[in-house]
Amino acid sequence: MEEKEISQAVIGRLPRYFRYLGQLKDEGIERVSSQELSDIMKVTASQIRQDLNHFGGFGQQGYGYNVGYLYEEIGKILGLDKEHKLIIIGAGHLGQALANYVNFERRGFIFCGIFDNDPAIYGTQIRDIEVRPVEEMEDFIKSNNVDIAVLTIPKQCAAAIAERLVSCGIRAIWNFAHVDLNVSEEIQVENVHLLDSLMKLSYNLASRRK
Amino acid sequence: MEEKEISQAVIGRLPRYFRYLGQLKDEGIERVSSQELSDIMKVTASQIRQDLNHFGGFGQQGYGYNVGYLYEEIGKILGLDKEHKLIIIGAGHLGQALANYVNFERRGFIFCGIFDNDPAIYGTQIRDIEVRPVEEMEDFIKSNNVDIAVLTIPKQCAAAIAERLVSCGIRAIWNFAHVDLNVSEEIQVENVHLLDSLMKLSYNLASRRK
Repeated sequence: MEEKEISQAVIGRLPRYFRYLGQLKDEGIERVSSQELSDIMKVTASQIRQDLNHFGGFGQQGYGYNVGYLYEEIGKILGLDKEHKLIIIGAGHLGQALANYVNFERRGFIFCGIFDNDPAIYGTQIRDIEVRPVEEMEDFIKSNNVDIAVLTIPKQCAAAIAERLVSCGIRAIWNFAHVDLNVSEEIQVENVHLLDSLMKLSYNLASRRK
Repeated sequence: MEEKEISQAVIGRLPRYFRYLGQLKDEGIERVSSQELSDIMKVTASQIRQDLNHFGGFGQQGYGYNVGYLYEEIGKILGLDKEHKLIIIGAGHLGQALANYVNFERRGFIFCGIFDNDPAIYGTQIRDIEVRPVEEMEDFIKSNNVDIAVLTIPKQCAAAIAERLVSCGIRAIWNFAHVDLNVSEEIQVENVHLLDSLMKLSYNLASRRK
């Protein structure tokens, strides 16, 4: 499969397919046509077929999709058949909120360390994870095979921390700092810029007002 | 200006322009060419020109863009020249993290109420905002002219709460519940599906591994 050439737009839609298929599965539904999926997901049936064809199809003319099978397969495509180890850099409110979010673990995203630069909270626990000094970050990543670093730190510190993460072999960064990271293309970066999202909402409100 | 016809992709890029122009402004830079902006933002100069032309251009041949003016204008387009009043539904970790995020207030997004269904925390304060029973939500929205409701509640409750919000006249929902809301197109919805974002990262990690 030529997965590497698939656009980020298609990939961005896969979690949503996964979510809807999981719901159908939970409801005991065994098969679904692209038209039915289209009705509940509010995208065209043709887009669904096109998107899924990137990964080899899965549908059968006159039958539709087998819900359980498609759910499993999309899960594998999304890499959810393997566990991922994550650390959080920044034990502030947002870092704590993410560490406490149990839904991530259900999908195999395991938080195994939290790092901060405030000595007052070293050794405290968030859920059952100890807050450690950020100086220990590199050793921890290497000895625990950490895949993903979550940045919940102010934007002023983000570039320096990202550089240190890359130097010690991190492969992916989930970035909540409100700045774009300037790292090698080998490193996967996914930004969650909350303020940008709120501004988009504000724009849509303003343009409706006219 | 025909702002209503502008695609969500263009609108999604505006906050990023705004962020970079703010940085240039803070550095005391007064003018910038689309080529310079292209170099720092890592998008093509032609895309920058095209995006900004949707709103009337702003650039001058041979001069480029006036940083301060363009920053102000994009801010106005994004509706940041007006204050927005927000309430948070769900005073769990994520709701608390958002309430504590002062950067939102700097941009005119003012949290004025937090609602929850746990009597144990009614009356407690998050920053200086009191946690109130969710039963008081409707009256509060009406008497405080709330624009935006932030949903940081489990997905099981999201649909019912969204329906109540719409009934009492809310105009925008910033949705962190991991479910798509089925509301009228008149209501602006911006989803932050954290797990989807993490799955995208996981996909990109998996496809790199091959």
